[in-house]
Amino acid sequence: MPTDSDTGPHVTDTFRSAALFTDQYEFTMLSAALADGSANIPCSFEVFARRLPNGRRYGVVAGTARLLEALTRFRFGQDELDTVSAFLDSSTVEWLRNYRFTGDIDGYREGDLYFPGSPVLSVRGTFAECVVLETLALSILNHDSAIASAAARMSNAAGSRPIIEMGSRRTHEEAAVASSRAAYIAGFSATSNLQAVRRHGVPGAGTSAHAFTLLYTGEQGPDEKAAFAAQVRALGVSTTLLVDTYDITQGVANAIEVAGPELGGVRIDSGDLGVLARQVRQQLDDLGATRTRIVVSGDLDEYAIAALRAEPVDSYGVGTSLVTGSGAPTAGMVYKLVTVDGRPVAKRSSHKESRGGSKAAIRTSRTSGTIVEEIVYPLGSSPRVDDGLVATELSVPLVRGGEQVDGAPALGDSRALLAERLVSLPWEGLKLSQGEPAIPTRFL
Amino acid sequence: MPTDSDTGPHVTDTFRSAALFTDQYEFTMLSAALADGSANIPCSFEVFARRLPNGRRYGVVAGTARLLEALTRFRFGQDELDTVSAFLDSSTVEWLRNYRFTGDIDGYREGDLYFPGSPVLSVRGTFAECVVLETLALSILNHDSAIASAAARMSNAAGSRPIIEMGSRRTHEEAAVASSRAAYIAGFSATSNLQAVRRHGVPGAGTSAHAFTLLYTGEQGPDEKAAFAAQVRALGVSTTLLVDTYDITQGVANAIEVAGPELGGVRIDSGDLGVLARQVRQQLDDLGATRTRIVVSGDLDEYAIAALRAEPVDSYGVGTSLVTGSGAPTAGMVYKLVTVDGRPVAKRSSHKESRGGSKAAIRTSRTSGTIVEEIVYPLGSSPRVDDGLVATELSVPLVRGGEQVDGAPALGDSRALLAERLVSLPWEGLKLSQGEPAIPTRFL
Repeated sequence: MPTDSDTGPHVTDTFRSAALFTDQYEFTMLSAALADGSANIPCSFEVFARRLPNGRRYGVVAGTARLLEALTRFRFGQDELDTVSAFLDSSTVEWLRNYRFTGDIDGYREGDLYFPGSPVLSVRGTFAECVVLETLALSILNHDSAIASAAARMSNAAGSRPIIEMGSRRTHEEAAVASSRAAYIAGFSATSNLQAVRRHGVPGAGTSAHAFTLLYTGEQGPDEKAAFAAQVRALGVSTTLLVDTYDITQGVANAIEVAGPELGGVRIDSGDLGVLARQVRQQLDDLGATRTRIVVSGDLDEYAIAALRAEPVDSYGVGTSLVTGSGAPTAGMVYKLVTVDGRPVAKRSSHKESRGGSKAAIRTSRTSGTIVEEIVYPLGSSPRVDDGLVATELSVPLVRGGEQVDGAPALGDSRALLAERLVSLPWEGLKLSQGEPAIPTRFL
Repeated sequence: MPTDSDTGPHVTDTFRSAALFTDQYEFTMLSAALADGSANIPCSFEVFARRLPNGRRYGVVAGTARLLEALTRFRFGQDELDTVSAFLDSSTVEWLRNYRFTGDIDGYREGDLYFPGSPVLSVRGTFAECVVLETLALSILNHDSAIASAAARMSNAAGSRPIIEMGSRRTHEEAAVASSRAAYIAGFSATSNLQAVRRHGVPGAGTSAHAFTLLYTGEQGPDEKAAFAAQVRALGVSTTLLVDTYDITQGVANAIEVAGPELGGVRIDSGDLGVLARQVRQQLDDLGATRTRIVVSGDLDEYAIAALRAEPVDSYGVGTSLVTGSGAPTAGMVYKLVTVDGRPVAKRSSHKESRGGSKAAIRTSRTSGTIVEEIVYPLGSSPRVDDGLVATELSVPLVRGGEQVDGAPALGDSRALLAERLVSLPWEGLKLSQGEPAIPTRFL
């Protein structure tokens, strides 16, 4: 079972500070608040999304375990202190030298759904200790949730067919690792990214590139069969051969000639994938390779995956659209101060209003399991649930007194939770078209 | 002058391997090619973009220095070898244990423009040593170039008005650092991201958040003046006060009442920024605060920046649209094998054809400096340049025999290069609307 215990290559015994994944204004606000004592006022901050991007019907919370891990590295060494000393007074610098988060954090489980206004994370402590976590919390949750939200739509479109995540080359090298992890939570079967294999235990997978086939080009020109033979010799007959470097029909013929009808799979990376999949399936079957699988890739997104539902495709490789959130590369969550010394506070100018007060949430469902409503209520109160409906608590304790509760959630648990949650959506909630959130959110 | 010499917090003396920012198939192809000796064939790979995204008229190369730095960390320690041992034969694992890139790399300078087909990077060496760099090279160049390309459009729209990059919270925490760096190359004046300040020497900046104003909420309700007074006391009268937490007109009045007419700036983060900027400018002038600057932020992109050209705005804060590449979060560059043992090779199925052969490029310009054409020619040949045109070599040596040539380019040099290159574009090339590339690319 994959876990998130690891933090990076070769530095597990080294202090990798996360303290500077921070916007400068958090520390200047800290400085001003320390100067007059306001810094010590008990506060709560809340992470939520005002809306779902692009008319999506649900969002998926991801990044929680990465955030909790990074929180343990939100510490200032001399390097970090040197950087902030350039613009901070010495007493603020000293305060940062001793920084430890000592407050409480509640939040949605990683892998849970969220809707507009869902209190995805609640951070409580002094103003000082909470305000400095804004950027770190949002960076991780906004990125990972954006990827998981897109990935869940793709997984759902793919049904029982596996999807390999292969988008690393289209995003920042570290974002690629987090994307593989988020995609796995959202039901992808494997990743091409080896750092995600190592760091998060996501299963690894891969096929072959056109470069490998092209490598076998001699004085007499290209020799696709030589390339296929080399791959099968090294990796076995269960390998997947890439058949579209030159001519696909000839490529499939060459593949079966070289590997025999027990060949594991062929990959098609270009062209009209539906038409080609049918042609290739027919050709494979005619060659007796009835169990040779067809993997398709090449600019696939959730819509293209859905469009291939009726075609003889065995699995998908998805790259660009996954790592870019398929049109929504950020979840757009915000981190807002909601209580000051127990009093609800809220910005009130313009359309960007927010709701003051610490909140928790439940989700109600029918006895059939289909969810009905998200109810966001003041922390400490008890929302009334209509007869015949079942309520599920969504906000769980993650940190108490600065210490993580119950250790990091295992990646497989988050994946299982999301699979369960997706089944609970009303059927309209799984539509790929633009629309309203799958369930309404009610604020008490 | 900012440089890129640093590699991360607290681990400058520790080996941070970049070897697993790699797709699994690169190592399985390696394994197959090592088994039959093909791995040792001299090859060249080329990085290029087939097209510019969204009808953009130019792209900006960024990430080169980050890639060259990461290349020095493309080494396998025991942890990395343990990961790949799960699916590789032992002789391939041993080969990786001793891996050092010993080949040559040419490429466009960081901060240069690129167009469809521009050979942005050329990597030459054995198949084995080159094929394993695909994902690392593309991740860095695709991310950083996407951000720099969007940022250059924003900088150009802003003209002489400075832009602060403040998008960290909307992207992966490490992508945020690289985004700040890319935005600085593309002319942004500063960043909110402190890790970019520390690691890359980008100038830091920041204002204040609504949370700070809300913190000053007592039993009698909100006290905006108390918040402003605390900020001015701690940070001086040159600070920028955020005036839109409650009512903007009252906020501006409070700001000047507290700070006096020498107040450095006010920030408006919501509403119709053009209308508000005019109102606020009038109000500030009426209050005698004629030199108090107006900073605007809130969902700005290049179009919104351009629309504010006639308004009394002094600087911009840009977040989401910058870190998401303003609709094009990846540059879509590919890494293709173009020669095998000196022979040009190219995939030839479907529309994804590429041009074989090692290439270099020049850009021609009129004596006025306006650029005319990108000429991509076979490496080693000498393209003819029409009379009256000046040619600029675009491909420069970056690595020779595995060693970086001339050290890392300084960030300030890349920024200066791009500023110069943008001036060389024909005027249509700076339009924000969709269109053709600013100059054609001709392949010899």
